[in-house]
Amino acid sequence: MTPDPCTPIVWTGTHLRLLDQRRLPHEEAYLAYDDARDVATAITDMVVRGAPAIGITAAYAVVLSARKHGHTQAMVPDLAALAASRPTAVNLFWALARMQRLLEGVAELDAATQAQLEAEARAIHAEDRAACAAMGQQGARFISPGSWVYTHCNAGALATGGEGTSLAVVREAYRRGCVAGAFVGETRPWMQGSRLTAWELLRAGVPVTLSTESAAATLFRQGRVHWLIVGADRISRNGDVANKVGTYPLALLARLHGVKVMVVAPLSTLDMGLARGADIPIEERPASEVTHFFGQPIAPNGCAAFNPSFDVTPAEAIDVLVTERGALEKPDEAGLSRWLAAG
Amino acid sequence: MTPDPCTPIVWTGTHLRLLDQRRLPHEEAYLAYDDARDVATAITDMVVRGAPAIGITAAYAVVLSARKHGHTQAMVPDLAALAASRPTAVNLFWALARMQRLLEGVAELDAATQAQLEAEARAIHAEDRAACAAMGQQGARFISPGSWVYTHCNAGALATGGEGTSLAVVREAYRRGCVAGAFVGETRPWMQGSRLTAWELLRAGVPVTLSTESAAATLFRQGRVHWLIVGADRISRNGDVANKVGTYPLALLARLHGVKVMVVAPLSTLDMGLARGADIPIEERPASEVTHFFGQPIAPNGCAAFNPSFDVTPAEAIDVLVTERGALEKPDEAGLSRWLAAG
Repeated sequence: MTPDPCTPIVWTGTHLRLLDQRRLPHEEAYLAYDDARDVATAITDMVVRGAPAIGITAAYAVVLSARKHGHTQAMVPDLAALAASRPTAVNLFWALARMQRLLEGVAELDAATQAQLEAEARAIHAEDRAACAAMGQQGARFISPGSWVYTHCNAGALATGGEGTSLAVVREAYRRGCVAGAFVGETRPWMQGSRLTAWELLRAGVPVTLSTESAAATLFRQGRVHWLIVGADRISRNGDVANKVGTYPLALLARLHGVKVMVVAPLSTLDMGLARGADIPIEERPASEVTHFFGQPIAPNGCAAFNPSFDVTPAEAIDVLVTERGALEKPDEAGLSRWLAAG
Repeated sequence: MTPDPCTPIVWTGTHLRLLDQRRLPHEEAYLAYDDARDVATAITDMVVRGAPAIGITAAYAVVLSARKHGHTQAMVPDLAALAASRPTAVNLFWALARMQRLLEGVAELDAATQAQLEAEARAIHAEDRAACAAMGQQGARFISPGSWVYTHCNAGALATGGEGTSLAVVREAYRRGCVAGAFVGETRPWMQGSRLTAWELLRAGVPVTLSTESAAATLFRQGRVHWLIVGADRISRNGDVANKVGTYPLALLARLHGVKVMVVAPLSTLDMGLARGADIPIEERPASEVTHFFGQPIAPNGCAAFNPSFDVTPAEAIDVLVTERGALEKPDEAGLSRWLAAG
């Protein structure tokens, strides 16, 4: 397997470099960070996005904060800013909690603790890379030769520490000769599909055809799609999935047309503390993302807009939930609990 | 009723002026035409769009062609270019047929025939204005006080000779105090919702909230929408409706969430010669409309895109079909035939 040129997060040992995903696909520019608060802003501003990538980024930001402040108390505002940077992706809180565990009972941050923090962030990054590879293997088993997949948003290398979640499945199934091509939903308003997924899959050699969200149902109806494959930003314990807005209607429309639905996400996306999808907080982003197109106004001045970043797909609409641990068909609370207990 | 400032088609008596809808909402610029072939190009390029407006425009273009050529035979290439300008809107063919009826058996175009042609085009325009008003009245009866509507694309004043089809209903129901506000789907890739409908409804005083197509299902699920109201580009005799791509999934999603579906279109949209929606030819437009945003590339170079301009909503997904003749609940072939016979 050739290494993927799409590397959204680079830890140099002294600072964090983030591929500025707002400038893709036309420019591949990295921004360098040595301050955790600036990293929090970068997460909010979507320099980096994708639930697993946000978690990894936040972990490295904790390392930067520790180096800067030298004692735990002074890190509190940085940790608060990181926790508030995006509200929906649970991997963010999971990664922060994992880093903070190393700070429990620690006041002064000596060299050993600093080294531990850095090792933990690197471990989170490496584990995510391995998890992506495992998800690719687990999910690809379901894809029959000659299949066309439809994917939404970007749950790929650009969203993770490895080959992605849903896109790891697409890539692996493509390498196995099972994926004939991928329809990529453009993903308004931020165009993650057009800008990121199309770029990433074309680099991996996968034939790509872009589609507006509006045209997806026509593809489904024409029998041109076999699997809808998406990532997840948070999964409640009954199997409901919060993912990029548009996933919910795509899943409902897929089922109406006999298209199978696969959700691919690392275990860190599961939030067993939440009973159901309705409990997942959904980020609303500025109206200007809808009324403007990357700064250029497209609607009349002052027009209001509804701009939720995510929606919730009920577990019943999902055929297969894939994590690095395996694949669960018809996910529900009982199945998830048994599966986690067995793991 | 104050006259609407949105007038897409102006006939001066000597030439045709079209509001360049590609430049809205930021610029209100008219282009002047005295050649039918240029008008055909303007239709293809979407200077003017909307099924009824295309029909009216084509009628005036026939007047221009007759004046230029002086005899019928020389008009043939112009008529062919007009007929080929957009393939889906049946009003185009209906208006051309109505104009050509005046040319039957006519070789040399004398002043009397020229005057008849101009009168016919003006009549098509005026009848459409009256039809819009009638549709507004017929449709508004169904809207209860306090309702929120969701509309897709632009079937408004900008698409017709009057107040629109679906938007005539929204405007009339708003004047009656029944519409509390309108959610406007932005309508990728051409952004007719953001650029045209939002502009037009805000001018009419209707509170507007834009939504991406992806977020519509969340609005439906939250119970914030009571009616999905759309226009039509062609209706087959069983009641299937070809309309802007995205209408089909919106109608399916509306029904899944208990949102009522209303289609509003003039009788000239009915194509009783077509048995079912699957027989309606669907225009595919250039991939560049999806890969570029008004000239600016948003996807990797050379990326393919699926860009059908329309989709077909089955009659069973429609609660009410409104024309200038009245409203038909649960439209089907039997109902449509009875209704047309009674009219």
